[in-house]
Amino acid sequence: MPDKVLVYSRFPRNELVRFGERYELLNAAGKRLTEVFSAAELGDIRAMITAGGTPLGGEAMDMLPKLGAIICYGTGYEGIDLAAAARRGIAVGHSPGANAASVADIAVTLMLAAARRLPVADNYVRSGDWIGAKPSPMMRPQAGMRGRKVGVYGLGEIGRKIAARVAAFETEVGYFSRSRQDVPYQHFPSLEALADWCSVLMIAVRAGTDTVHAVNADILRRLGSSGIVVNISRGSVIDQKALVTALADQSIAGAGLDVFAREPHAPDELTALPNVVLSPHIGGHTLESHVAMQDCVLANLEAFFAGKPLAFPVPSAS
Amino acid sequence: MPDKVLVYSRFPRNELVRFGERYELLNAAGKRLTEVFSAAELGDIRAMITAGGTPLGGEAMDMLPKLGAIICYGTGYEGIDLAAAARRGIAVGHSPGANAASVADIAVTLMLAAARRLPVADNYVRSGDWIGAKPSPMMRPQAGMRGRKVGVYGLGEIGRKIAARVAAFETEVGYFSRSRQDVPYQHFPSLEALADWCSVLMIAVRAGTDTVHAVNADILRRLGSSGIVVNISRGSVIDQKALVTALADQSIAGAGLDVFAREPHAPDELTALPNVVLSPHIGGHTLESHVAMQDCVLANLEAFFAGKPLAFPVPSAS
Repeated sequence: MPDKVLVYSRFPRNELVRFGERYELLNAAGKRLTEVFSAAELGDIRAMITAGGTPLGGEAMDMLPKLGAIICYGTGYEGIDLAAAARRGIAVGHSPGANAASVADIAVTLMLAAARRLPVADNYVRSGDWIGAKPSPMMRPQAGMRGRKVGVYGLGEIGRKIAARVAAFETEVGYFSRSRQDVPYQHFPSLEALADWCSVLMIAVRAGTDTVHAVNADILRRLGSSGIVVNISRGSVIDQKALVTALADQSIAGAGLDVFAREPHAPDELTALPNVVLSPHIGGHTLESHVAMQDCVLANLEAFFAGKPLAFPVPSAS
Repeated sequence: MPDKVLVYSRFPRNELVRFGERYELLNAAGKRLTEVFSAAELGDIRAMITAGGTPLGGEAMDMLPKLGAIICYGTGYEGIDLAAAARRGIAVGHSPGANAASVADIAVTLMLAAARRLPVADNYVRSGDWIGAKPSPMMRPQAGMRGRKVGVYGLGEIGRKIAARVAAFETEVGYFSRSRQDVPYQHFPSLEALADWCSVLMIAVRAGTDTVHAVNADILRRLGSSGIVVNISRGSVIDQKALVTALADQSIAGAGLDVFAREPHAPDELTALPNVVLSPHIGGHTLESHVAMQDCVLANLEAFFAGKPLAFPVPSAS
């Protein structure tokens, strides 16, 4: 008999295939547990797979009296009440670094697309405006990357990969993170100092209660009129209203966002702007990174059911 | 009295500002010379500024009996009949390398945007499909860049800059050019061999009569079903009909095009495709590269009017 694993969040079916080959899956698909499963079924569950962004508190944990492991599919685990899990002796695991290259790639994709206003350009060709030689203020040449000062906020695995990619575009790279690291980039002692220095700000910090609206109107203003801000971390790190104002005023030149304040909600005042590039939280969504994330999930489940410590526990729960 | 300079092609006014500060400009703005200027006016002209893609043959040169210098704004000079210029003792100059970083940047922008289907993603957010959780086959995860084999066709200044940028994305880089170069990338003896090896093909070759439709149905087929082709060279290098077929059949995954067979014409069968990213020949259009191109134009004009050889003659006319 395969072990039973609860799937708590809603996942595309093809992302669950490898788990289903190994375990008996009870798929709640994001619905309330008591709507989908009987108390007897829930009473058997020892491990669950969830998405890090899905809220999961003590109340839900208490519906699963035998729960011993919460395994997040992906790097994030901000939805999990870690203290509640710890009090109940539940281990929490995730997929650290599995999608770092993929997320760093989308960060640079958004940076370049914002700098060159790629969605506007693509639409200019498709709409027939190019053949009609229609004047477009949005198509005027902008500052390119060569010689640009690019600031990376947060120098974890994703931040370092962003820095390495960006440096190849003949830019200068600086960073702000809690500690100075052994990297060939200039360290700044504060986010303010970094924003004063750079015109492109790449947000790669791990989001938490200490980073809520860290990038606010003041930080955006410091980037200057050719400023570009890119966020691939979590929507909470930017004051989204301040960003909309800065983009609408053109007090910065552009933005690239893979994450939003209330996903999947992207407000009309943001989607109406031509100087922003938007993607629906697809940073980690490449074939390779899904395979790598699934490898981590499977390694965590295997360790748990073998009675061992999780292969990839989340840092504060380890 | 400032020297007179004819502006032959149509340029945005702000690109001519620095020339107008130094010279008396006669701006034909792409119209027939005899429609805009009298024979007496044309008879005085000793130098002209043109765009490399604008056709300029012996007949037009003969309307300007004192013409001694044709200065191309930009790197290209494929529209100029070099033999006709040489027969008339007219020097031809251009702006070599001035836009190389900017063009390499747009190549990588298009590559990443095609790989991650950025215009589709941007539209998915803007249209409300994301919040509506509308299923989209186009939004399925694709192969990312890490571990990808990227082939660069043509390793001039732009090709080398593309290779350096692409290598930062944890890819393997190979190239095909007429001669093996002292670079840390694998050399392939033919375009066929390169296309068999790589799944991303970056076209950076200098376009000419020998490269017309060099990237044809056979080369595209060799890239495979995850194949991506990016062209920032000239539209003539790709068989555009074969490309449309390959994209429509999904026998390759995507394409990024800054150049087209008959600019500014992008055919409906191309613009209707979701798996292509299009930009209206803006590779060189950043503020820095315009300044650098203008520097070359001014250096060429200054040398010419001082009776010296051009500062940046085109290779085959030097």
